[in-house]
This record gives sequence, C-alpha cells and structure tokens, in this order.
Amino acid sequence: MGRFTSIAASAALLALASAQTFQRLGTCPTLGCILPPDQADFLPGQYFDLRFEVHAPVNGSEAFNNGVPDEQFSVSITKEGGETKSITEFFKVKEPALEKWNFTWYEDLFAVDAKTPSLVNVASKVFRQLAIYEPGNYAVTLNFYGSEQTVANWVVRPLATKRKAKNVILFIGDGMTTNMITAARLLGHKSINGKYQSLLKLDEFPVIGHQMTHSIDSFITDSANSASALYSGHKSTVNAMGVYADSSKSTFDDPKVETIIELLVRIWDSAWGAVSTAAIADATPIALAGHSRSRYDYGYLVETTLNGLSNYTWTKSGGPDVWFGGGAEQFYPGKDSFNGQDYYAKFAEAGYAIANNKTALAALGNDKRALGIFCKSHFPVWLDRNVLKDNLSGFKNDPFAGKEPALDLPGQKEMTLKAIDILHKRGGDKGFFLMSEAASIDKQMHALDYDRALGDLLELDDTVRATIAHLEEIGELENTLVLVTSDHGHGFDVFGGADTKYLTEATGDRQKRRAVGTYAESGLSQYTVPVEGVSYGTGPNFPVNWDPRYAIASGFSANPDHRENYKLNPKPRKVVEELVDDDYYVNPSDAPGGFVVNGTLPVSESSGVHSLTDVAVFAMGPCQETFGGVYGNIDIFYKMANCLGLARPDAGKGGSCGSH
Amino acid sequence: MGRFTSIAASAALLALASAQTFQRLGTCPTLGCILPPDQADFLPGQYFDLRFEVHAPVNGSEAFNNGVPDEQFSVSITKEGGETKSITEFFKVKEPALEKWNFTWYEDLFAVDAKTPSLVNVASKVFRQLAIYEPGNYAVTLNFYGSEQTVANWVVRPLATKRKAKNVILFIGDGMTTNMITAARLLGHKSINGKYQSLLKLDEFPVIGHQMTHSIDSFITDSANSASALYSGHKSTVNAMGVYADSSKSTFDDPKVETIIELLVRIWDSAWGAVSTAAIADATPIALAGHSRSRYDYGYLVETTLNGLSNYTWTKSGGPDVWFGGGAEQFYPGKDSFNGQDYYAKFAEAGYAIANNKTALAALGNDKRALGIFCKSHFPVWLDRNVLKDNLSGFKNDPFAGKEPALDLPGQKEMTLKAIDILHKRGGDKGFFLMSEAASIDKQMHALDYDRALGDLLELDDTVRATIAHLEEIGELENTLVLVTSDHGHGFDVFGGADTKYLTEATGDRQKRRAVGTYAESGLSQYTVPVEGVSYGTGPNFPVNWDPRYAIASGFSANPDHRENYKLNPKPRKVVEELVDDDYYVNPSDAPGGFVVNGTLPVSESSGVHSLTDVAVFAMGPCQETFGGVYGNIDIFYKMANCLGLARPDAGKGGSCGSH
Repeated sequence: MGRFTSIAASAALLALASAQTFQRLGTCPTLGCILPPDQADFLPGQYFDLRFEVHAPVNGSEAFNNGVPDEQFSVSITKEGGETKSITEFFKVKEPALEKWNFTWYEDLFAVDAKTPSLVNVASKVFRQLAIYEPGNYAVTLNFYGSEQTVANWVVRPLATKRKAKNVILFIGDGMTTNMITAARLLGHKSINGKYQSLLKLDEFPVIGHQMTHSIDSFITDSANSASALYSGHKSTVNAMGVYADSSKSTFDDPKVETIIELLVRIWDSAWGAVSTAAIADATPIALAGHSRSRYDYGYLVETTLNGLSNYTWTKSGGPDVWFGGGAEQFYPGKDSFNGQDYYAKFAEAGYAIANNKTALAALGNDKRALGIFCKSHFPVWLDRNVLKDNLSGFKNDPFAGKEPALDLPGQKEMTLKAIDILHKRGGDKGFFLMSEAASIDKQMHALDYDRALGDLLELDDTVRATIAHLEEIGELENTLVLVTSDHGHGFDVFGGADTKYLTEATGDRQKRRAVGTYAESGLSQYTVPVEGVSYGTGPNFPVNWDPRYAIASGFSANPDHRENYKLNPKPRKVVEELVDDDYYVNPSDAPGGFVVNGTLPVSESSGVHSLTDVAVFAMGPCQETFGGVYGNIDIFYKMANCLGLARPDAGKGGSCGSH
Repeated sequence: MGRFTSIAASAALLALASAQTFQRLGTCPTLGCILPPDQADFLPGQYFDLRFEVHAPVNGSEAFNNGVPDEQFSVSITKEGGETKSITEFFKVKEPALEKWNFTWYEDLFAVDAKTPSLVNVASKVFRQLAIYEPGNYAVTLNFYGSEQTVANWVVRPLATKRKAKNVILFIGDGMTTNMITAARLLGHKSINGKYQSLLKLDEFPVIGHQMTHSIDSFITDSANSASALYSGHKSTVNAMGVYADSSKSTFDDPKVETIIELLVRIWDSAWGAVSTAAIADATPIALAGHSRSRYDYGYLVETTLNGLSNYTWTKSGGPDVWFGGGAEQFYPGKDSFNGQDYYAKFAEAGYAIANNKTALAALGNDKRALGIFCKSHFPVWLDRNVLKDNLSGFKNDPFAGKEPALDLPGQKEMTLKAIDILHKRGGDKGFFLMSEAASIDKQMHALDYDRALGDLLELDDTVRATIAHLEEIGELENTLVLVTSDHGHGFDVFGGADTKYLTEATGDRQKRRAVGTYAESGLSQYTVPVEGVSYGTGPNFPVNWDPRYAIASGFSANPDHRENYKLNPKPRKVVEELVDDDYYVNPSDAPGGFVVNGTLPVSESSGVHSLTDVAVFAMGPCQETFGGVYGNIDIFYKMANCLGLARPDAGKGGSCGSH
C-alpha cells in the first residue's frame, strides 16, 4: 500500500483507542502531529504547506508534562535511500516562527454529558508552499519531548508529464449510489418482461470503477473533504477542503494542498469552470479552488476563488472561466457576501459577463468569462422546475435580493452545454476542465424526498447524454475524458412496491404497512405506464407518471423519526417538526395518511445522513481504461492528473518554490 | 434493445394496469400467453419448451367470453425476413394435445380482504425440447378469440462457437451489495489516515460490471429466478428456476430452458460442480440443473440433478462431479428426501465418494465424483464456526439425522479448494465449471444480523484469495475465468459509529439514539485495533476485534419491527417474536439494552427483504474485458457461454432435436 518501510513508524505515546468517536485531532493519534500526515500521497511538483504540532493535554486521560508543550521539537525529511535533511535545508526555506495556542475537546459522550472538556496546549510551526518533485518514498520525522518521535511516510507518485486528454469533464452526482441509479432507471425507463427498452446514458459507459469515499479521520465523509480528495489527491477531515485540518482557531491558516484546477492553470494555462444546482459556494463546486477547514466560510471562498489567497503566498487560479450555479446571497451585497461587498460588481470589474436567468444564459457569448448565478441558495429541483411548476412561486430565491421567486431557471443540462461552449472557446488548444454537479440528489436524500432526489439523478443522466452528443458535434468527444461519479452515498434502496391507495385508506400504522408488497408482489414499474390526462412534457428518459397508485417502496438505513406514505410529495419534503427541547418530532403534515417510522439517528438529527458505501465511477474517453477496478477517491485525482500530464518531476513550469 | 420491429406487437385486450402488484400471470398482461414470452433471448442451439395459454376469466374486472377459453387458437413463427411457418413445421415436431385447467388469483389487496378471488379457465398446449440454431430475430404469434393476437419477439444471439476459457469459477455472494463489500473491508482491513494497509481480494480484480437483477414479473427478485437468469440467460418469475412459470397447478410441467451446465456437459463433456454454505438444494446451488416453478421442491430437485428429468425428455447433465454443501435432510431417508429415499445410498450407487465432515472432505481422492453433505439445513456461519464456536453445540444439524450438532465442519474455502482439485482432475482437457456460493450473506442480512453477514462476506473474499493462489499453483490461473458476483441486494448500509457503552447505559429509546455518531463522530474502525486478551486465531483479512465499544451503526431500508444495540449478537439473531394473531412483535430478548425501530414492512413479515439495487460483477481471466459496464443478469450467462464457445448455430454436437 505504498508504505515507506525503511523507517519504522514508532508510535509516540499510546493512541487513545478508547475514544475514537471523538478525536483530539484527526490524523494525529499521538501528541506529535505532522500535516500532511503519515500515508499521504503527492503529485510530483504539487504545492503544499507543512505543519507540525506538539500537544500537551492539561487534563483528561492523556494529561502530559503538566500541559507544557515541547517548543524545542525538531523536524527532518529523508528520501528513501538518501540522507536525512532538515526541512529548511531540503526545501531551501527559512525556519518559521513558533506559534502557540490551545483548544478543548471531549473524550466521549459521557464527558459531553458531564461537561468535562479536555484542554490541550499546542506549540506549532508551519512551512508554506513547498513541493517535492522527485518521485519516491519520503519519511518526515518529528522529534519531541526528548525521546518521542512521529514519522510520516509519504509517497510522491511517479506519474506522466505528457498529456493524453485535452479536456476533462467530471460529473458529480452528489450522494449518488448504485442503488439510486438502479431506482432512477426503474422510474425513467420502460421494461417489458425483464428487458429494458431504453437505458440510462450511464449504462452505456464502457468502464466502471468503485471508489472508496471514507474521510481521513472518519469512515463517513461529508461533501467538502470528499470533493477535496477528488480534486487534490489528499483526503481531509469532515467539513474541510484543500487543507489538512489543524487544531488552531483560525479556519484559514490550515496547511493547504494544491488542487487540480490550480495545477492545470499553472502548468497548462487551461480554462476551467464549475456548474452546480447548489449554491456555487457549496462544498462540491467551491472545493475546486477553495482552501478552508470550514466549508461554511462561503463568502471568503467566493472571494478567494476570484482573487486568490491574500493571507499566504499561493498559486493563483485566476478565477473560473465559467461559474454557473445558485447561491446569490454570496453575490448581492449583504450579510452573506464577503465583507458585505457586491460580488456581481466585483466579477463584472474582473471582466465577467453575468447572467441571472435562463434567458440571459442562452444569450451569453463564448469569448468572455462568464458568471451565472440564477437564484438564492440551491436550485429548486428538477421535479419542481419541470413537473410541479406551481411550487416555484413559493420560493423566495431571486438572484438579486432573494425576496421574489426565481422563475426563469436553467437546469443542469442548459448550464453544462453553455459552459462547454465557453470553455471550448476560451481553452482552445490548451483544453479545459469542467466539474458539473447534480447537487440535489444529496440534498433531497437528506430530506428523505426520494422522488425529488431521483428526478435530479435523471436530470444528471440527461445532462450526460446531451454532453456526449454535444462533444461529438463540436469535434471534442475523442479529446475529452468524461467521468461520472459521486462523493459519498446515502443508505437508500428500494425494497418493494406500495399500493398507495390501500395504504391511505387503511387504518392504523400496522395495517397500513400491509400495503407494501415485496418480491413478486413488488410488481412492475408503473412510472412508465401512460395514464390518460397525465403528461409533463419532459420527454423520454423521465417517468410518464410520477404518482402511480403502485409506487416504489423505498427507505433509508439511517433516518430521523418520520412518516411514510410512499406517494409523491407534492411540496418539497420536511419530515420532522421544528426543534422542541433539543429534539425533533414527526411533522404531522408530512406524508399524510402514512405510517410512522421511528428513526435510528439521534433525535436531534432532522434529516438522513451519509453512508459508507463505495460509489461507482463511470469513465469514457482518453485514459478510460485506467478507471476500472477498486480504488480510493484520491486516486481519481491521480488518474486525472496522469491523463492530463500534470506531474512535474523536474520542477517544470512555475517551479519557483521547493527543491530538487 | 434487440426488439423485433418488423412485426408490430399488438396488445390483445387491455393490460390490467391497475393491478400490477398482483398479476394474473407474470409475463402475460393479455389473455393470450406465450412462454418464453416477448423479449426473450436464446443461445443458438439452446433447448427450451414452448407453452401457449389462452385465458378466459370467469369473473373480476377481466371477465371475458363467459369464462370459455378459445381452444382453437393457432400459433406460428417467423424469422425476420423469412416466411411464416407453423410451430410443428418450423421445429419438425408433432402437434401436442390440448390441456385445460383453471386457477384463481386476487386483483388487489382490497380483493384479498374481501375474499373475492378471480377465477380463470385456461386452454393450453406445450411443445417440448425445441431449439433454434440460426441467430437472428424471430416473432412467435398466438392468434386467439378470432381477432386477438399476442406476439413474442425473440432474439437468438450471434455468439461464439470457439472456446476462450477452459474453466469458469463463478462465485456468488448471495444478497451481496457494494455497500456490504465496503462494510466488510472496513471490518477486516486496517487503514491509517485514510489509506488501507491491506485490501480485499475483490479489490484487486481488474474489471467491474454492474448487473441489473430484476425479475421478469417484478422489479424485486428472489434467489431462485436470479440464479436461473445467471445460469440460463432467461429471467423467470419469483421462486422459479430453469422454467418459465405457467398457470397450471403442477410445478413440474412448466416450460423449461437449458442451463449452462447442461449445455457444457452436452457440448464439451466438461466437469461441473457446486459448493454452497446453504443446503445444496437451496435455490442458488440447485438452479444449476433444476427445473421447477417452486424452489421448495427440494427433494425432487436433488433427485433430478442426479438422475435427470423423468417426466419429459430433456438433456441429462449426468449429475455433478462435485457437490458440497448442507441440507442433509434431503439425503438421509425421511420426510424431506424425495419419496423418503436414502440419497446417500443413491449417490454411492452412482459411484460417488461421500464425505460428511471436514476430515473426510480432506481425505477425498480427486478421481471419483464426490458428494459432501456436512450438516442439516444451512451451515452455521463463519462467525459461529470460527469465533463464537460454543454456539455450534446448540445446533441440531448433524448430517445423518440432524439431531446432534455437526462440529467438524469445513468452510467455503476448504470446500472450494477441494472441489477445484476434483474438477481439475475429472475435467482434464475438457475443463470445468464451478459455482461456489457464500449463502449466509443473504440469510444473515434477512435476520438483520449484520456482523454474521459480513463475516461470511469476508469468508467469501478469503475463499477467492485462496482460489486464485491455488489456480496459480496448479497452472490453471490463465485458463480460468473467475467471476464474483451476487444475485440481488438487501438495502443495507453503514451510516455511522455507535458508542455501544453509552447506548447500553442510557435510559429510553430517544436518549439511546444519542450514542450514534455520524460524519466526523463516526470515527475510525475499531475492528482492526488489537485488544489485550482478544484473539480468534482467524488471521489476516478478518477483524481482530468483533465487538468493539465503538461499533459500526448500520441499518436497513426495509425491516420488521426490531431492536438495535449495534453490538455483536452473541447468538444468531432473531429480531421478532413468534407470530401472534398474524403479526410479529419485537423479540424482547433480542439486542438487549437497545432501542426499538419500528419497521417499514408488513407486520406479518419476520425478516428483512431483498432490494432493487444493481449488484457488482468482478471479473478476472480470459474474457474479463467483456464484463465491464452495465448489463442484465441474463447477460452473464451469454458472456460465459460466449467465452466457453457454447453457441451451436448449425445444430452442432448433440443437436438431435429442433430444426430450422
């Protein structure tokens, strides 16, 4: 597994194995921390910051040295087979100043209940914007408290400098699992006697892989650090992106890692863009150029994506060529924009064409950089935009003040096709990178609104279908690596069919559950059976009836208390009531006529949560053959970087920092 | 999708679209039925029976012709571009006698509650052991009631006659999903800072595909008809194998299809065998040579696997070369064996060496055919055989009378390795086909006993690892296509970590749920952290601690009422109490100290149920490249048959029946 075995990793002090659910600092089971930690991988020439921390717990089960951290710690690096050098010598950088702070944490739930936090004093140093060029195995050593030692074994992977793909389009179905893809196919495609008469576009991809999504400090990830892993080749901690989380108070000083679009701009001067049906500052789109321990630094992340980091020296991606999504509240001046500033004005000043509705999107030229912000917050979902359109007027989400409804909204498909045209024009021979996210698969799965989630999954598939057709039209299909994957799962599956008429009319929860048919009594999909008077105009690849009497019965491995009637939710779903005494309770107006399912999550949880499952990777185009089999989410970065020829084993272009 | 478009399929009478959950006869929405039905695929030269039925409902919403079925129906077949011929002319067979019967069914749950069944009279004919050799599109037409017509469009696929793989080993993890594989990896393999230090053997397979598991008449399958689809290239109805289910009373007269082992014996005279940790007469192993509408015809299926069918002419597979599993009650004389006979004696008479425990298994020679039946019913699971061994003495499952515990039990690995040696010897240059099933992944998921299910998944992976090593040792690795797949899923996923100490000590269900940590609070796997005094001797690739304080929190999209404490169940799990007034209730002795989760399934359901999700296919060896992408479960048969050169487009060996 790429472990550097010539130097033994000696465990400094004992790991606190009995408190895994809470951690003093993820990636640091001992009192001496190296970030990037043991087992980190790097692209040759990729920029990163390097932080060391020495911890001195004042109280609790780890209390040590009367809470005084060792300020005299020393650090070194050794390339396998080579000599050991100090960090300053190896990277030809100056010794940074010592930093000191403290933080508290809870060792377990009993400590939380007893209100007995553990206090930790810290001494730390950070080295900024380093790079290692020569592939190989490295060991970084932190010596502290006299005899204690933490060793981080790193691998700089030997990867290609030659470019095999001109363009990469990375589709992310947020929270999308194989289970959901299967369910969406059942809803959108007709089968006769077990044979589908049409299939998803995903079903035509020649290569499938499975990626492991777990976080660095937890086996369940969130969308920030999973996106960051896909884009940077470094796993992070929950809610962090583009950095390894340290224990300091600031969310902006954590050690950074360079992302794929930063590398692509620096090395090939390619065009790049992001499309999302979420707020553009939401984790998955913003992690392309975002560096923060907290995904909630929305305004800061918009500012730094446009103008680069100002707190520390760092590579500049120069701002996206295309940025289409929601999240207007980070753009119009107000409490949610960075320092209350007008980011529509700032983007216009930077030369961006700006679109705020579908009509203006279509009218955009392809020469200028473009910002398209179409609504406040996340997009209303495909089902509300295309089938239950009356719901749109209930939103207060216009892109200027968010007080009127945004009614002229594009979908993922329109945004993606326009983005390709602009990137194709602006990237020219230098190619482009586009990330296009179907965000509400995840958001609606959190809400347990399965129909809305699956509608957005079908929209993603429809977007992939249109993208491939469009790439063929413009002559770029064979130059473009198209990937469709996800960042994590939700424990969703379909387990039968429900007679919703019987369910609604039956009395009592136990009798209502009789309406659920399993195995043979699941029957066949009725979502593809035409019904007189029902037509949404949404064409092929979508259900012809979203609310059949015999509906799919589906559920969640993790859920809050809620009610199920298995019918289409005419309005976006809210399964629980507002918080009462720190607890949520079943929303009496949700799923009328349904039966109550009590949950498996803490009663303070109002929605479903992410799950462990590996998620699929569908690949088509140059380098597709490298995406088969099972691998980690970070490997998608290395496979894309390899295909784009981004490795710089000999400093290469832009190699002004770092050494050998 | 291979649909024959030159002849329009006219829908005879209206489909009963409002009663999908119950069906008069799956595959037959009109009153005229053809089996194999519309959309069926065939291997060139594959034997099959052909049944026609004309239905006359006496009452109910479909009542027609005063309940008198048309006995004068006529049938024909047309090859695309060719002339229309009668069935007797095309296949050069005699006209069979007319059969008549009736049956009842319920149109929906309201009809069940009201006790108002619908009666249907039937006229039918069946043609036995036909074959079509020439690849192409065919239309079979049933004319009835004067002007009504049902058309079945069939595809005889153009496949290879040349053999690319000498051997095929097909591993089936019954009910295994990607979600479960991910969870098993987490339990059995250690990771440091997000990087696994070892992986599953499955993770090394170069090619991954996804197979769609849905049944022909329902989107949720059972293990009989999914196994049958994998083995025959024909989807069937729930609980059926090797036949298309008709509406007659007998479960033995339904129209049959030839399976891969029947083809392999007939065409190449290869050796074949089955290994299972279930009863050998359980659906997955018995479907290799089984033909019945009911998977519950256990004794009959054992008899016909050994001696072939006696009720109708059919190809004989000659009995397996190796048959290792449980299910002794079909072998020792008694109520569960066919006609009460002694099948140990019958197999011995047929020349089989017989082993009834692990010691005797190891002592078997490789020359003779071998029967190994090691216990009554299904095997105790890996966890009970290897970790919680005291549980074994609680079983009454010896292989002779099933009254004493079977203590000297082999595992899937020992059975599979021995099976390979015998098949390798007996198959010689003619090669072999082995199916090896990890049965209790499914059985323990039904029981919501996640640890026991995942233990058997790790045993499967360990078996695959040992198999590949052994194939290399005996020089057969590059001659052998190794596939690992599943037959259907369960809606299982892991969604966090649970502090089982806190959960147990907390008071009240809502407080107990606080013990479940999500995202960052999921923490890291503690199943790989050594604990003083805990050692099972099960070596690498298995947990070093099965019962950590911080356990995985997992669940099911479908479940009966039950209680969860997320701890290892020291005894095999039983989540509900016995049936009381047609309902099940939470078992008060299950999951002590846990919280109650009320279910989403009918209260008459005592266990979890199968789910919809596509399942993964892992491929290695000759033809591996044909197993990438998304396809149906029947395609696995065609891909294997293609790799084994089983198509006979010109009658070929053994082509004594059928014509064109």
